[in-house]
Amino acid sequence: MLNIGIIGAGRIGKVHTQSIVNYVRTAKVTAIADPFITDETKAWAEGLGAKVSLDYLDIINDPAIDAVLICSSSDTHSRISLEAIAAGKHVFCEKPIDLDVDRINAVLEALKAKPELKFTVGFNRRFDHNFRAIRNAVVSGAIGKVELVKVTSRDPAPPSAEYAASSGGIFMDMTIHDFDMVRYLSGEEVESVFVQPAILVDPAIGEAGDFDSAVVTMKLSSGALAVIDNSRRCAYGYDQRAEVFGSEGAAASANDAASNVVISGAQGCTGEKPLYFFLERYMQSFATEVEEFIDAVVNDTPVPVDAQAGLAAVLIGIAATQSAKTGLPVKVG
Amino acid sequence: MLNIGIIGAGRIGKVHTQSIVNYVRTAKVTAIADPFITDETKAWAEGLGAKVSLDYLDIINDPAIDAVLICSSSDTHSRISLEAIAAGKHVFCEKPIDLDVDRINAVLEALKAKPELKFTVGFNRRFDHNFRAIRNAVVSGAIGKVELVKVTSRDPAPPSAEYAASSGGIFMDMTIHDFDMVRYLSGEEVESVFVQPAILVDPAIGEAGDFDSAVVTMKLSSGALAVIDNSRRCAYGYDQRAEVFGSEGAAASANDAASNVVISGAQGCTGEKPLYFFLERYMQSFATEVEEFIDAVVNDTPVPVDAQAGLAAVLIGIAATQSAKTGLPVKVG
Amino acid sequence: MLNIGIIGAGRIGKVHTQSIVNYVRTAKVTAIADPFITDETKAWAEGLGAKVSLDYLDIINDPAIDAVLICSSSDTHSRISLEAIAAGKHVFCEKPIDLDVDRINAVLEALKAKPELKFTVGFNRRFDHNFRAIRNAVVSGAIGKVELVKVTSRDPAPPSAEYAASSGGIFMDMTIHDFDMVRYLSGEEVESVFVQPAILVDPAIGEAGDFDSAVVTMKLSSGALAVIDNSRRCAYGYDQRAEVFGSEGAAASANDAASNVVISGAQGCTGEKPLYFFLERYMQSFATEVEEFIDAVVNDTPVPVDAQAGLAAVLIGIAATQSAKTGLPVKVG
Amino acid sequence: MLNIGIIGAGRIGKVHTQSIVNYVRTAKVTAIADPFITDETKAWAEGLGAKVSLDYLDIINDPAIDAVLICSSSDTHSRISLEAIAAGKHVFCEKPIDLDVDRINAVLEALKAKPELKFTVGFNRRFDHNFRAIRNAVVSGAIGKVELVKVTSRDPAPPSAEYAASSGGIFMDMTIHDFDMVRYLSGEEVESVFVQPAILVDPAIGEAGDFDSAVVTMKLSSGALAVIDNSRRCAYGYDQRAEVFGSEGAAASANDAASNVVISGAQGCTGEKPLYFFLERYMQSFATEVEEFIDAVVNDTPVPVDAQAGLAAVLIGIAATQSAKTGLPVKVG
Repeated sequence: MLNIGIIGAGRIGKVHTQSIVNYVRTAKVTAIADPFITDETKAWAEGLGAKVSLDYLDIINDPAIDAVLICSSSDTHSRISLEAIAAGKHVFCEKPIDLDVDRINAVLEALKAKPELKFTVGFNRRFDHNFRAIRNAVVSGAIGKVELVKVTSRDPAPPSAEYAASSGGIFMDMTIHDFDMVRYLSGEEVESVFVQPAILVDPAIGEAGDFDSAVVTMKLSSGALAVIDNSRRCAYGYDQRAEVFGSEGAAASANDAASNVVISGAQGCTGEKPLYFFLERYMQSFATEVEEFIDAVVNDTPVPVDAQAGLAAVLIGIAATQSAKTGLPVKVG
Repeated sequence: MLNIGIIGAGRIGKVHTQSIVNYVRTAKVTAIADPFITDETKAWAEGLGAKVSLDYLDIINDPAIDAVLICSSSDTHSRISLEAIAAGKHVFCEKPIDLDVDRINAVLEALKAKPELKFTVGFNRRFDHNFRAIRNAVVSGAIGKVELVKVTSRDPAPPSAEYAASSGGIFMDMTIHDFDMVRYLSGEEVESVFVQPAILVDPAIGEAGDFDSAVVTMKLSSGALAVIDNSRRCAYGYDQRAEVFGSEGAAASANDAASNVVISGAQGCTGEKPLYFFLERYMQSFATEVEEFIDAVVNDTPVPVDAQAGLAAVLIGIAATQSAKTGLPVKVG
Repeated sequence: MLNIGIIGAGRIGKVHTQSIVNYVRTAKVTAIADPFITDETKAWAEGLGAKVSLDYLDIINDPAIDAVLICSSSDTHSRISLEAIAAGKHVFCEKPIDLDVDRINAVLEALKAKPELKFTVGFNRRFDHNFRAIRNAVVSGAIGKVELVKVTSRDPAPPSAEYAASSGGIFMDMTIHDFDMVRYLSGEEVESVFVQPAILVDPAIGEAGDFDSAVVTMKLSSGALAVIDNSRRCAYGYDQRAEVFGSEGAAASANDAASNVVISGAQGCTGEKPLYFFLERYMQSFATEVEEFIDAVVNDTPVPVDAQAGLAAVLIGIAATQSAKTGLPVKVG
Repeated sequence: MLNIGIIGAGRIGKVHTQSIVNYVRTAKVTAIADPFITDETKAWAEGLGAKVSLDYLDIINDPAIDAVLICSSSDTHSRISLEAIAAGKHVFCEKPIDLDVDRINAVLEALKAKPELKFTVGFNRRFDHNFRAIRNAVVSGAIGKVELVKVTSRDPAPPSAEYAASSGGIFMDMTIHDFDMVRYLSGEEVESVFVQPAILVDPAIGEAGDFDSAVVTMKLSSGALAVIDNSRRCAYGYDQRAEVFGSEGAAASANDAASNVVISGAQGCTGEKPLYFFLERYMQSFATEVEEFIDAVVNDTPVPVDAQAGLAAVLIGIAATQSAKTGLPVKVG
């Protein structure tokens, strides 16, 4: 039985904890740390039989803990990762590892010295049933050689301008998931990127120095193409689709809705809107990513998403940010 | 070049004429007869180079006419068919040949004496792209042995009670197309029928002695099952679907709409309603049925829908009418 | 905190237990009884902190238990229900309560004497996201007055002839869920039923005195119609669809698949087959039905599916069985 | 009755002629000219009652001809347009008017001098039922302010390298339709364009100096974005889709197939591939564009696609070609 420590008991920390409790028979959440933990969360954590602490170092320093899930604020991810690796813990680190490449590289270096440790980064969408089915179609050869990857990713509602300003920008905060999806679906590296950005949703986001809409085109290592379209606001909910086109065909996913019922009447034939909230849309993927991380630790098999994936997505994000600023295509890395 | 005479220049007579003009290179409409022809229709007919007459016997008696399309009122179909056969014309007869079995049999007898003549009955839906694709799937073996045929057939708006009363009833007037569809899709005969009728749309239809809604179940010659659901009114248009379920799978069609565009917004994801009017929905099938009839004449090959099909559908309709009255299952024929 | 006892630790007993553990914060499984419990199941139960017993009477007689879930073999449902009611327990009883109407009525009588007790029967499909969305459309008035309910229900693979013979027959074993669905979707009672049965899948099922295919038509209390088509074998998986047609439109559901990905290639455009196994297809509904039962107990609100629903479905099943034998329509009850 | 002359009796010339014969009551094809006319085509033309000539000047110089359809080889379009305008004919010119901007401008100048003449360019896809339904949704305000236009356009099979070399390149030959579609759907001008081209289908096309795959991003006059993805080869047929995303929602079209039948079986649930050939896919649009051109002439109303549209698409194509060569974004015009 693996002993897991949860660092950060906010929304995503709770989701992961609950996934382990509900679905994982080989691991147990034995400690939860959060400096701002509420009474309610404390009671919930203790109800699960976990020790509760304000200081995550209580987890890092606990020799009984085998693995940690780093769910704290983004700016602490790389530091806590380094401390956890130093303490010999397996690490599940929420994305991004860091926005700074040097600090991500420090984590990669630390891992080289401890090859027995598993480290994964939380690109949960790779575990989504639809995107995985597309990837499986690619791997199976059903669509031939990959020629084009398309990702549509639209948030239901825009963040505040303050959030946008502090988030590292749309490409580091939002598109980073889509960059990883392009790498995942194609199995290739992104070589160059061109961004056509726009401010169409909220001028305040523009005033804060960020964008709220973009089309991002990419050249992949095989010569294949990729394109992402993003918007920070979507009137019909959370729009999350992908398509891979290849020499023998294409695999494409649609959105998920709460039901597939269609109501036909004088107004037309109306189906439900896509699931609105990312925790609804991707709930199953969050559970699967934690399950597969723990499986990798227990069975000493490769993690599904390694630290390199965390670096690669950030490097693309940096190039995209630069392209948006310069209006020119930019090579990655 | 086949010379065609059109008997009856109402809506469907015009549709067939236009199909020949537009799509058929091997035939020419040389005469059109209608006792109630309007000036406008007369001008249209003459514009096509056709002789116009008030008396259909001018067509029957014209030795230059090779084939006639009988598009006159239903109660004249069998009589004119007999006259046309006697005059040595090939016949395309709109459905039904007659509501009276003896009179249909008289036509079949007349045809036996003239095996060189082609005779077809206008079950146009057999020529519809969707239903034909289902039939092709059945014939190809793709769905294995047929076990169940399902037909959904709902009119956009109910007829007047007067029409209902004089039409021979819903099973002879409306369901007769669906009975033929069951025979077509399955390639089997209907052995018995049970009707669960209802008056849900317009009480006046009930007062006129007819029904406006029904579920009809059938046993087919192989032991397979069939079911039709009918309504005389459908809020979202003309609902025309079919499904055949077999030992190896199923083939099912959806409705056709004017476009496949989906508009997603706060209200949901809305596609267009099905095409509302039977002439829109089945326009292509009307053209194909006439083309294939003329091909059969020109090439001396079997007609796609023979007179026997006209008899069979009426026999099922008679059994269905009786079942609706008695509340009991009824054997066909 | 409600204390729950699980009677019967087979497949469905485990599913319900796990649902409570994973999703219900207001209840705890404190005891599990099964005369044939395996070592593995025993270890699992004890791991959940439940007392394990071979004798369900240990649960019935335990004053600390507030509610029981009866997941034992079907022939014990009514007897254990009566004992549990006598002991003052709330009861979640798997379907059917009994195949014998007198014994179901005994349970209803016992409940009349204890109006403070909640009793529900496990028609889980009412809690399915798709069917519930149809029901919501009906209740909202979006489709007007109900005129026709259609249910398609096809199992992926047939049972053995032995099972068929001992199950009470297809109408009591399989169609009973669909009868309940007709009642649920329409909000009406079934007044009469006509069955067109067939043996198309496995002759041995016929030799055992049962059927493997059927079309069932029904007249509902408002005069509306209903139709169910069943097959014991479906080449493409578990086919579970419904449609309600009304005066203002229709609401229809499609099957659920593991993903919505479509692979387009030389073969066509291919989506995944429906989920094959009922526990996959209906897993979410099993969780919701247990949650809502416990909510009803905790909040003293009406249960979503009452004992009367268990009786009604059996009465329709009995009428259907008789119709299949006689070939005639049969009034229900 | 408008007298029409057809210049060029190749594939598209025949399609337009047939559309006029079949669907247009206000016009008559009275002359057809083609220097390479076959005996078969000559017989067909004469069968329609048209004068046949080898020299298109016979049409230009015929005072009885009101309008001409220029369906000759692309390099003759602007010259014949100028001659027809000079002769006072209304002109339907197949796309492109020319690949040279000066020569297009010469046509625009000539038209300024004869404002009574109608001139249209054959961007037939604007008349397609699906794309028009999207445009209607935009115009109606149903999706709010346009933020992104997406066009997917994939040919079923690549041209020869020789064709590619002489066609003006993929952006002038193929994408030009999609550029017009972006302008049509958005109602905006394209301000700048960036092309990410690739040679993924046929290296010979690359050796001929052209590309066979591309992602093209555009900035529109309102600040909105657009993206086109092209491939010269698509294993599942002719892929022609569009989507417009706006502040209030999105409108998206799917492909058209010969039927909507889905065959479900062990292999999955398979629908038909999109229509393979552009004449099948766009047949209805070809008829509608000719009808609406003739309506504009007859009623003296604006043509649906004016000469300016022909220029605009070429200017975007030129910018795209330059972007593909330089790897940089390029301003249009």
